[in-house]
Amino acid sequence: MGDMIRDPSPATRDNRNRLFYGTFIHSKTREELEYLHNTAVAVDASGTIVAVNKTCATSREAEDDVCSKLGWRHGEFDVRIAKEGQFFFPGFIDTHVHASQYPNVGIFGKSTLLDWLNTYTFPMEASLADLRKAKRVYTACVRRTLAHGTTTSAYYATIDVAATNLLADICLRLGQRAFVGRVCMDREGFCPDFYIDESVEQSVEKSRVVAEYIRGIDPGYELVAPILTPRFAPACTAPALEGLARLQKELDVLVQTHVSENEGEVALVAELFPWSKSYTDVYDKTGLLGEKMILAHAVHLSEEEATTIARQGAKVSHCPCSNSSITSGAARVRWMWDKGIDVGLGTDMSGGYSPSILEAARQAALVSRHVAMRLEGEEKERAKLTVDEVLFLATRGGAKVVGLGDKIGGFEVGKQWDAQLVGLAMVDEEGEADGDSNVDIFGWENWEERIAKWVYNGDDRNTKSVWVKGRLVHERR
Amino acid sequence: MGDMIRDPSPATRDNRNRLFYGTFIHSKTREELEYLHNTAVAVDASGTIVAVNKTCATSREAEDDVCSKLGWRHGEFDVRIAKEGQFFFPGFIDTHVHASQYPNVGIFGKSTLLDWLNTYTFPMEASLADLRKAKRVYTACVRRTLAHGTTTSAYYATIDVAATNLLADICLRLGQRAFVGRVCMDREGFCPDFYIDESVEQSVEKSRVVAEYIRGIDPGYELVAPILTPRFAPACTAPALEGLARLQKELDVLVQTHVSENEGEVALVAELFPWSKSYTDVYDKTGLLGEKMILAHAVHLSEEEATTIARQGAKVSHCPCSNSSITSGAARVRWMWDKGIDVGLGTDMSGGYSPSILEAARQAALVSRHVAMRLEGEEKERAKLTVDEVLFLATRGGAKVVGLGDKIGGFEVGKQWDAQLVGLAMVDEEGEADGDSNVDIFGWENWEERIAKWVYNGDDRNTKSVWVKGRLVHERR
Repeated sequence: MGDMIRDPSPATRDNRNRLFYGTFIHSKTREELEYLHNTAVAVDASGTIVAVNKTCATSREAEDDVCSKLGWRHGEFDVRIAKEGQFFFPGFIDTHVHASQYPNVGIFGKSTLLDWLNTYTFPMEASLADLRKAKRVYTACVRRTLAHGTTTSAYYATIDVAATNLLADICLRLGQRAFVGRVCMDREGFCPDFYIDESVEQSVEKSRVVAEYIRGIDPGYELVAPILTPRFAPACTAPALEGLARLQKELDVLVQTHVSENEGEVALVAELFPWSKSYTDVYDKTGLLGEKMILAHAVHLSEEEATTIARQGAKVSHCPCSNSSITSGAARVRWMWDKGIDVGLGTDMSGGYSPSILEAARQAALVSRHVAMRLEGEEKERAKLTVDEVLFLATRGGAKVVGLGDKIGGFEVGKQWDAQLVGLAMVDEEGEADGDSNVDIFGWENWEERIAKWVYNGDDRNTKSVWVKGRLVHERR
Repeated sequence: MGDMIRDPSPATRDNRNRLFYGTFIHSKTREELEYLHNTAVAVDASGTIVAVNKTCATSREAEDDVCSKLGWRHGEFDVRIAKEGQFFFPGFIDTHVHASQYPNVGIFGKSTLLDWLNTYTFPMEASLADLRKAKRVYTACVRRTLAHGTTTSAYYATIDVAATNLLADICLRLGQRAFVGRVCMDREGFCPDFYIDESVEQSVEKSRVVAEYIRGIDPGYELVAPILTPRFAPACTAPALEGLARLQKELDVLVQTHVSENEGEVALVAELFPWSKSYTDVYDKTGLLGEKMILAHAVHLSEEEATTIARQGAKVSHCPCSNSSITSGAARVRWMWDKGIDVGLGTDMSGGYSPSILEAARQAALVSRHVAMRLEGEEKERAKLTVDEVLFLATRGGAKVVGLGDKIGGFEVGKQWDAQLVGLAMVDEEGEADGDSNVDIFGWENWEERIAKWVYNGDDRNTKSVWVKGRLVHERR
């Protein structure tokens, strides 16, 4: 798209030290954002934050400070200043997204999960075995999500090995941090003839091939890592799930799947796995459930399932856009938090209609109010998620879900510089706003109110620049 | 804002005949959009559609056609062509919006209706007695909503006469069709001391003064008309409601208020009007309920209330963004339709967080799915609103609600040219989109799918041009 960078030149690969100055906002706790004004963040050439100074009256003072403390020399590092009203915010983390379904966003009619898969999803995914089409779709998806400030994505690709490897290539080239998963689905009768793994063994081995490919292009998993991806219990046989559990332990990588999205699906799982106590139990018994597992949706969990998930340390990706649009239900985030489960946000394109995690955060707030409408008294009040809480879900919450809680999600020394610069439009005395934005700031709003305005009306126009691991990966022209 | 027109020059006041050519999309029925390709719509200098030709292979053919049929002469009319992939769509109609609350969009915290009024709303509204501030706020609001394709708005201003008159001036100047209402609220104990009408008589008479002012600036109500605006039952005394009912009959203008938005409010109305059978009954007994009345929200109506509203021919403004954000509830549009009630959409800024009726349409679809989640079987399926249905709400549905069903909302001879030109971005072979838009079209989508993509991911960037009564009132640069 017109405002996205094309192949970055070596100069934008950011192999210099950098200093960022101005207002920084990130989550202090799950309940509370922290507003750091007159702050300087120094990022070294590897993309790591090496200093944070919260008391620099001017950018010049910040420059002098890094020179004296870090031994940097004036002119040998770049300085980026957040202008008045702008702020640096951690990059968003999309903990559940089907890159292969990107062309279908917004297209779901009145369908629900199981008919949606057959009508819209499987045909589109199967068609990406055409690598030229896959390149076009995946490139559009990665560019679009970067423009929305998504610096890390946990992707489902398709069952095709070559196309999945291509998605990993594209993430690496465009600079998005990503977990890339080949979709495993081997159950005859559920999977369509034209879109199914040949056997249990193939389901597992093809996943290994993709993991090895990614190790080849990014040996330390610095930016791109493999993630095992059994589609969901109804599409997989128990032996395949068990095989993937063994592979997961061998490779020590993340694994992602869906759980308890839709009532019809829950009933189907009970029928297909008659030995299981619950949907969650299928993953537990086959050895998959553990700290490295991301479970998408978790809408209709029983108390017992939530307890099991918490005990095993598995994470949940909350996908409010998707759950509303295909009428799956309203997931109870506060209830999951109360159980001790870590939760992040997912766009779940294209069950979810939007590429934006800011939209997912907004919908998380709204869906929590629909959860509240069914409750009474204190429980009703508690169910509602605040602006601060949904932004936690979008950043630090997501970081923990993808196992990178110590690496991304906030501005601390030692973390990676995965960040976005956000700007809102100011309305002048004549009632005109400067610049193209859907957020109007009149000037009397405090910072908390500005952030609320951003969450409820902001979009990719407000995301001026995006960095991943120190590299500038998107800039609006 | 940078991309909005400033004071249009006489040349853009469009006092020439105009011909529009390309694809036109509007509601054929409540359930179904109509797609008119290779179509020409001729609009005369007064802004009225004078011819529609659905079989013009080229724009040249369309030009020849109007010359032969209408006696227009080449070169003496302007031609605007919707490019490949673009389409003309009726302007959106916002049937419930508080212009005075525009600066507060997105700011509501965890509040619900009654505390939200006291914390955020009344202080902001009262502050607009400062006409310089009112001018800034109202101008920003009208410009912003025009940019989102809203060609008609039913506005609540404030209790202040001068500021309300100013809003009417601004609508007229910027060219937005509008109903402008001075807010009536005379109940001591509910209304704050700093923001209340002095007496029943003042509540009524000040409304008359505004109506007379508007008649002075737009004698035929060609663009701007007054609308009586008792805030809602809890803020008004019965004598004031009765006085406004008499004034409504005398002036024969629209009247707007709120009904049954929130459960606490419903209980309060029962307490304040002990003689009433229901919230709706308060308006019915005081003589307000009738064909010219717009009732916003209608979330918690009883069967009997809905029957009464339908019998009296009153209309409902559905405000899904607001109902979700301040946790009011989920209004049942299908149920109201089944009762025979006409329904349109309202942004309800700033209970609603968004200035966009496209966002309201999107949320109407999503909220209908939350309504569905509480139902079973056939009722569950029926509750869901389709893309075609929410776009009907946004256009023809809204037109009927504001009493202009014969004048706006679609493309027929005799209707006014209140329209928007919409464009979506095309993704090229390299996965890059042309132009700034959040909707990516790959080229294989049919028209129904393109419209679904627009509804779920579109925004003001897709609205390229906006006309009201033939006049170009917004164009993206």
